[in-house]
Amino acid sequence: MIKRAGELVTEVAANRFGGKGEVIGTKLLDMEQLQGKGRLFSHSILKPGCSIGYHQHNGDAETYYILKGEGLVNDNGTLVKVQAGDVVFTADGESHSIENTGTEDLEYIALILYSK
Amino acid sequence: MIKRAGELVTEVAANRFGGKGEVIGTKLLDMEQLQGKGRLFSHSILKPGCSIGYHQHNGDAETYYILKGEGLVNDNGTLVKVQAGDVVFTADGESHSIENTGTEDLEYIALILYSK
Repeated sequence: MIKRAGELVTEVAANRFGGKGEVIGTKLLDMEQLQGKGRLFSHSILKPGCSIGYHQHNGDAETYYILKGEGLVNDNGTLVKVQAGDVVFTADGESHSIENTGTEDLEYIALILYSK
Repeated sequence: MIKRAGELVTEVAANRFGGKGEVIGTKLLDMEQLQGKGRLFSHSILKPGCSIGYHQHNGDAETYYILKGEGLVNDNGTLVKVQAGDVVFTADGESHSIENTGTEDLEYIALILYSK
């Protein structure tokens, strides 16, 4: 089946995990299509200055694949700059945050797969 | 952990499922990081005129999320044009193909999750 760009569900969440501003997330698959293997597959956008706060993953692992922009990631305790083409893999039990530290939108694919 | 763009493994496959030319695939996660939930999470590129032939999925479901370019997808028997922002979801038991029918690279995220 085809899901056109304009048909996808976009949600805006404020101060996610204590972060700044909003994260704009477009869901690429719904829970049925994720087939019990995960709980999120989305195209996310953080506008300049916006962030998702530091939080731990328990029972699942999250991947960020950076599409556009520049950001600062706290990768389980280590601060690293990220840009297009970089992958941030946060394993079960690890923590992360991400902030748009650039002047254009920071866009990334987010995938959360269950670990058990 | 961070995997820098330059560290990711890129594979080039010719005539995939009888398609034309090559598909260039950069693996975003390895099998361990997929945690048994799937077998592919990649950023794929088809140059103009290149394609992946029509094939069926058995035991898994594949999603294409179009990032750039224009293509023609055979979505389980129905031909549809796709462009950036469109999602092609091929469920377990269904078939698909994808061809770059434009003049720039066709880029997409491919995700294969197991169905059982």
